[in-house]
Amino acid sequence: MDSLDNVIRRSGADAYVAFGSSQNADIRYLTRFRTEDPFAYIKKPGEKGFMVIGQMEYERAIKESIAAVMTRGEAGLLDIIKDEPLKHRAYARMIANLTGPRIILPASFPYGIGHELESLCEVTLDPGSVETTRAIKSDEEIDKIRSVQAATDIAMERAISLVKASRPIKGVLHHDNHPVTSEQVRSLIHKTLMDYGCHAIDTIVTCGKDTALPHALGSGPLMESEPIVIDTFPADDMTGYFTDMTRTVVKGEPSVELLEMYNAVRDAHDLGMTLVKHGALGSSVHQAVVDLFAEKGYGTNTSGFTHNLGHGVGLEVHEQPTLGPAGGALTTGNVVTVEPGLYYRDIGGVRLENTGAVTTKGFDSFTQFPREFILR
Amino acid sequence: MDSLDNVIRRSGADAYVAFGSSQNADIRYLTRFRTEDPFAYIKKPGEKGFMVIGQMEYERAIKESIAAVMTRGEAGLLDIIKDEPLKHRAYARMIANLTGPRIILPASFPYGIGHELESLCEVTLDPGSVETTRAIKSDEEIDKIRSVQAATDIAMERAISLVKASRPIKGVLHHDNHPVTSEQVRSLIHKTLMDYGCHAIDTIVTCGKDTALPHALGSGPLMESEPIVIDTFPADDMTGYFTDMTRTVVKGEPSVELLEMYNAVRDAHDLGMTLVKHGALGSSVHQAVVDLFAEKGYGTNTSGFTHNLGHGVGLEVHEQPTLGPAGGALTTGNVVTVEPGLYYRDIGGVRLENTGAVTTKGFDSFTQFPREFILR
Repeated sequence: MDSLDNVIRRSGADAYVAFGSSQNADIRYLTRFRTEDPFAYIKKPGEKGFMVIGQMEYERAIKESIAAVMTRGEAGLLDIIKDEPLKHRAYARMIANLTGPRIILPASFPYGIGHELESLCEVTLDPGSVETTRAIKSDEEIDKIRSVQAATDIAMERAISLVKASRPIKGVLHHDNHPVTSEQVRSLIHKTLMDYGCHAIDTIVTCGKDTALPHALGSGPLMESEPIVIDTFPADDMTGYFTDMTRTVVKGEPSVELLEMYNAVRDAHDLGMTLVKHGALGSSVHQAVVDLFAEKGYGTNTSGFTHNLGHGVGLEVHEQPTLGPAGGALTTGNVVTVEPGLYYRDIGGVRLENTGAVTTKGFDSFTQFPREFILR
Repeated sequence: MDSLDNVIRRSGADAYVAFGSSQNADIRYLTRFRTEDPFAYIKKPGEKGFMVIGQMEYERAIKESIAAVMTRGEAGLLDIIKDEPLKHRAYARMIANLTGPRIILPASFPYGIGHELESLCEVTLDPGSVETTRAIKSDEEIDKIRSVQAATDIAMERAISLVKASRPIKGVLHHDNHPVTSEQVRSLIHKTLMDYGCHAIDTIVTCGKDTALPHALGSGPLMESEPIVIDTFPADDMTGYFTDMTRTVVKGEPSVELLEMYNAVRDAHDLGMTLVKHGALGSSVHQAVVDLFAEKGYGTNTSGFTHNLGHGVGLEVHEQPTLGPAGGALTTGNVVTVEPGLYYRDIGGVRLENTGAVTTKGFDSFTQFPREFILR
């Protein structure tokens, strides 16, 4: 990665060092290796970065990782731990032996090893170069996210078809003589995603007043004429790339307030997607939506539009850039959500969310599934 | 948590501070809160620990977390970021304002914030108190792991039944006129787990020579008379607790070498489970299995028994304690795997793995599913 070489050279360091499992998106990005167990990654300018892992993972790493691979034995760790039982100290000594006297560490580096390294090397902090690099996706990465979204469109279609096919009995939606529940809709989405090699946890399926809590998970039977918010953020099992999608529907007749809220959110969604393009400021796009809501009488305090308009999506479900007050200029290759929402404790919530790429022409939505509020 | 209070008091600190998402098992343990987004957790002796999170998560956190909850606004972060745009610096200032002058940080604490805190507070490193505390499970935690394992037993039963019901055509196992594949068995396990509110990724289903790579994932058709290793490590969606389970089967007639290997692994599995109990050394239990294998002519070098006998299981799939050369005394409340294996490049691999609790009486296996090698 040329940009990481520049960061290392600019800081005067001999090497960049990261440490973590593939749950750490920077590590995943630098190595493309999947493992539950944390490992060290070391990159010197002009050389291929390498990872230090256990013997058991060695062959798989050679096959699957884009980094070079060294075993803990080859890296000297097994000798070091003989006289240094404290793991963070042993790792610091191993790293210092491999890097040279000046190193640069990311902000997410574990403090235990990092603090120990300060007594062995000259340490500089990198506040987030890899995170910044990750925010601009290659065509290959964009294809990967587009493909997770394609699976997500199908899963959402099945979920909404189930709600559509339901019939109310005393206000509770029923299908095949059973109440349709949040859990059932969530499970249908998760199983459909699985058929496409993707997985989601914590998909939101809320109904009624619960929809006013943007992060509530939802449980129990779904109700007639009440808002139903379905928000899922799956990742591809193999690539680790996320996408993020929300639809709000109602089966039956929404109240006038709810219908007006939906129309405002739909207009805000259109406006956001129209304004996103290379060069636009994330803060301005967000503000335009705030203004649109204000015009229609919806505030942005503790109720109303209470969150940012959107966020970057990639190896993390929330990453750079930001469509919110702190958002800078958007760039070709950013992948972002556009997700306006309105939340009122006494009515409920409405949110619509697409994920797509920022281009010079505008917002290239990966989400193709239509918006349809009232299901007949 | 009394033990954390002791750690804080012993170090002379005013507060313990952690920072991470619920993917960090310590954070998950201290708060029982699930979120993708990292947050600060602060604990003062004699007081309830509290977490600092965004407004959007506030109500859910109040409901779901065992920690007290403060919004970023209440914690002063929103004011601090007005004149400190660098996130790790802003967080350090916020934390220092909330803690008092002396703090203790876990080894996993992010280096960016930790390094910054060194200029604001007196910082002590805690190498792993919470990890150590987590290694001894309460009855409630044991019930949670037992329940994930019960679901895993069912998923394994379905997977093995599918292999059992298959018939070979030209050496390839078939069911319903289609080849039975690794992917199909993996998907069956994952979907079954989902029905029980659990999820697994990267379940290993290998066949033939691939089984000699303990961490290969496996793909393609399963073969007659070849070893099939199925290793799954699911977690409960809600509680986050893992379990870990492996079975090795063959459909058809195994070679004599393979059958002898299986019998040795089964005997080692029995021996390991017999020796695990309160007070036993993890290193001794491991060594006893090494010795058993050696007696039967199986070494422990780059082939043979190449890994540790077992590991702790909880909010991480691999955690303390260790059944291996570095393992100390086992304690009532530890939950561990017992998973001997043998791996030879020219024959394949065999592994058997149960998860259970350490008690004064011995190993209380959560895994109830029987071992059956040759499927008729």
